Amino acid sequence: MGTTGTEVEQGGVGLDPAAKKTVLRHFSYGLYAVTAAHGEERGVFTANWVAQVSFDPPLVVVSVEHDSSTLGLIRASGRFAVCPLREGQKDLAGKLGRPRQRTGDKFGAFDLATVPTLTGPPALADTLGFVACTVVSETPAGDSVVLLGEVVEARVLGEGEPLTMRAAGFRHAG
Amino acid sequence: MGTTGTEVEQGGVGLDPAAKKTVLRHFSYGLYAVTAAHGEERGVFTANWVAQVSFDPPLVVVSVEHDSSTLGLIRASGRFAVCPLREGQKDLAGKLGRPRQRTGDKFGAFDLATVPTLTGPPALADTLGFVACTVVSETPAGDSVVLLGEVVEARVLGEGEPLTMRAAGFRHAG
Repeated sequence: MGTTGTEVEQGGVGLDPAAKKTVLRHFSYGLYAVTAAHGEERGVFTANWVAQVSFDPPLVVVSVEHDSSTLGLIRASGRFAVCPLREGQKDLAGKLGRPRQRTGDKFGAFDLATVPTLTGPPALADTLGFVACTVVSETPAGDSVVLLGEVVEARVLGEGEPLTMRAAGFRHAG
Repeated sequence: MGTTGTEVEQGGVGLDPAAKKTVLRHFSYGLYAVTAAHGEERGVFTANWVAQVSFDPPLVVVSVEHDSSTLGLIRASGRFAVCPLREGQKDLAGKLGRPRQRTGDKFGAFDLATVPTLTGPPALADTLGFVACTVVSETPAGDSVVLLGEVVEARVLGEGEPLTMRAAGFRHAG
């Protein structure tokens, strides 16, 4: 049993950074391609801070870092899609995690096949499928923004098991 | 490749319920005990709609159904704790998922050992640890409420791998 004591600092309650990191690294995540489009521009990035949050209506949250270039497209269009990646797509998850400032349009740079959706955001053909969402609300969350989206369209595109952070060997900072 | 066509209904965009369910079931989750206390009352429930959403400051979201009896304790105290369950704690996850209206105080009913925290919510001793959070904001989300919490205390309580929905054999409704 590794018990790391929580330290009391400055006469108050202190947050032990090592314990915080260790416990937050025990949170489990899948890996997803999140997409958006506005006008001629389209964006895609790898996300793991994703969860459903309501059954009825079906709602999901996605946390997006402020410096994501896709965030502007989501805000301009009011839409995004979430495509769960498949087992074995670790390399794709790595590529889609690169900043667009370096890669240019990732759809072209990585030769990504897309499936048109009825509601706007491009879906990646080589994933398990997509849910397309309209943005219901946006909540500031430190270095990121939590987008709450209502699922308005869904389609199954492939079969298999979803890729997880653990299976990919990715470890988030915690 | 199972491609389920999205149906267009009533002249507009239709949401295919079967595709929506299939894709949302490809989302990956861990399993957590979420706790809160206010006065003499304490509550705990099993959650899977949990994610970190910011590194700096460290923020997490937890989606809680409106009819959760622990939600009142979280609101009254402004605090909650998230304890990642360990591999093999499927039975505990099942027990903590029962409504308190049926079980009574779950800490007594299931003989749960707790660890006192400096910030209020009781932590379950037999878990990987806890992050205790202050509620930063609350967002209505259909049948649930999305709580955004800032991590103010953390402690490691055990070693091992986290329990996932998949490993537990739990399948959420999607």
